[in-house]
Amino acid sequence: MKCKCACLNPNSDENEENPTKNQHLSKLKNDYLYHIALDTETMNLVDAFADTKFVCMGGSPTRMYAFAKLIMQEIGYHLPFGTKLLDISEKADRFAMYKVGPVISVSHGMGCPSIGILLNELIKLMYYAKCKNPVFFRLGTCGGIGHKAGTLIVSEDACNGLLKKEYSIPVLGKVLNRPTELDKQLCDELKSLSQADDDFQIVSGTTMCTDDFYEGQARLDGAFCNYTEEDKMNFLKLLQSKGVSNIEMEATTFAAFTQAAGIKAGIICVALLNRLEGDQISTPKDVLTEWQIRPQILVTRYIKKNLEIK
Amino acid sequence: MKCKCACLNPNSDENEENPTKNQHLSKLKNDYLYHIALDTETMNLVDAFADTKFVCMGGSPTRMYAFAKLIMQEIGYHLPFGTKLLDISEKADRFAMYKVGPVISVSHGMGCPSIGILLNELIKLMYYAKCKNPVFFRLGTCGGIGHKAGTLIVSEDACNGLLKKEYSIPVLGKVLNRPTELDKQLCDELKSLSQADDDFQIVSGTTMCTDDFYEGQARLDGAFCNYTEEDKMNFLKLLQSKGVSNIEMEATTFAAFTQAAGIKAGIICVALLNRLEGDQISTPKDVLTEWQIRPQILVTRYIKKNLEIK
Repeated sequence: MKCKCACLNPNSDENEENPTKNQHLSKLKNDYLYHIALDTETMNLVDAFADTKFVCMGGSPTRMYAFAKLIMQEIGYHLPFGTKLLDISEKADRFAMYKVGPVISVSHGMGCPSIGILLNELIKLMYYAKCKNPVFFRLGTCGGIGHKAGTLIVSEDACNGLLKKEYSIPVLGKVLNRPTELDKQLCDELKSLSQADDDFQIVSGTTMCTDDFYEGQARLDGAFCNYTEEDKMNFLKLLQSKGVSNIEMEATTFAAFTQAAGIKAGIICVALLNRLEGDQISTPKDVLTEWQIRPQILVTRYIKKNLEIK
Repeated sequence: MKCKCACLNPNSDENEENPTKNQHLSKLKNDYLYHIALDTETMNLVDAFADTKFVCMGGSPTRMYAFAKLIMQEIGYHLPFGTKLLDISEKADRFAMYKVGPVISVSHGMGCPSIGILLNELIKLMYYAKCKNPVFFRLGTCGGIGHKAGTLIVSEDACNGLLKKEYSIPVLGKVLNRPTELDKQLCDELKSLSQADDDFQIVSGTTMCTDDFYEGQARLDGAFCNYTEEDKMNFLKLLQSKGVSNIEMEATTFAAFTQAAGIKAGIICVALLNRLEGDQISTPKDVLTEWQIRPQILVTRYIKKNLEIK
């Protein structure tokens, strides 16, 4: 099955692979974006969102609130006196979303289905709000493959748990496959933003995206395990030999949906451990918290550069 | 591939299909249950959790906090003066978990990977805490197939988006399939708890579990759609003819992992709409909130009956 898309790239050819928006949407009197608590009838989405240039998402709500506060400070965005940041999607009780001038910071939960719901609604939001060329980022955590804990890993592309570079979901009882490429130029640009005094490395590679954190990532410490440590190590080394740099749980959906929509997109994850050395995340909480800011630091550099803020 | 499991049912045969716990766990000095912020080394999980009899999970944190308060009132559980309910897993910033005497109330996020992470860690928790015969419930929301909005649907079993009654994930590069049966007796018992003055119906059937809310559930209103309204209706009617009563996003994982662990488990969802009539959830928020309490009401009846509380 081929897919059509809500293409947001004005330079696209609108060819057969990437033609137009979902033609059914024009029939809706009101499109209620249920999981982010926005709608097209009672709200003016153009007024509220047309200036969006960067959509940054990450797993946990607290982390994305922290990013909203960081980017506010870094781009010198001031809230009017007597106001504070509002969780725009609070009423839906699913994702937490903040808007700081041209930047949206939003949590996506864990796993492909969760980020997939968010991406569907964000892509529609960009379309309804007439946003021009927004750039999407995922700021995540991952297990590194041969990269030490604390390393920043920029995804070149994404593969699934069968090492296929595609995102597959059943649609009307048949499997629909979408490619999972990411913008190569953006990946290179992100890597180029390293600074001499950074206390972390930035690397890139293929990101494996799994639907399970334990057996799906070859861990030995889940509730279930039917393989040996040797089986596990052989698999992780196979991944390394195929160019897989890290494992997480959202990359295929993120890459596939942004690619299908013609949106420039990048994934930056910090490795919480090197999976060649273990399964458990036993690093103290304060160190983990410091590491989790690293993807935010890199994306902040990108945003400031593109907004021409020194 | 066959699977082994952390079987919690003392009456199980421990046969080849369902033998013992994950043998690697005994090698861990500390098992840090990362996403629920508990561990086996610094906490006494037996003291804290051994009395658990019912583990109730649902998508959203606010809804599961509301259930914790409801069950506290209904079973007459009193917190010591000067205390309040604590979100046990708050530090992990992923799931919200409350314990009210013999009842755990915990949020699971959206989608199979998210609830799968939670189930791995809860099953290990039950094992470490030496819980005896805990019963697991999912209290969810869904789209009904031929059932009107507000109806309670108890799952008889679960199928995936290809109508197969199995939960499949890649493990070490090969697909591992697990059956997705649920306890028939529990399903019947839940249905029998209807009361003459209930303003809702209780039905049962197969629950289809999808990895996507839009195309995966044959909606026309996602960011992407490459089929017609006729294609959609034909698919939904096919589902109905195959005994599918509702569609949601967690049932296969919930059924497969509880079955593999030998845990009695049931799923009760309220239909937020009848998918034969539309895609959008446009019911006013206060009505939705009232409907979302219905699965909680039914499970509360079950818990009170089993605790012999009138």
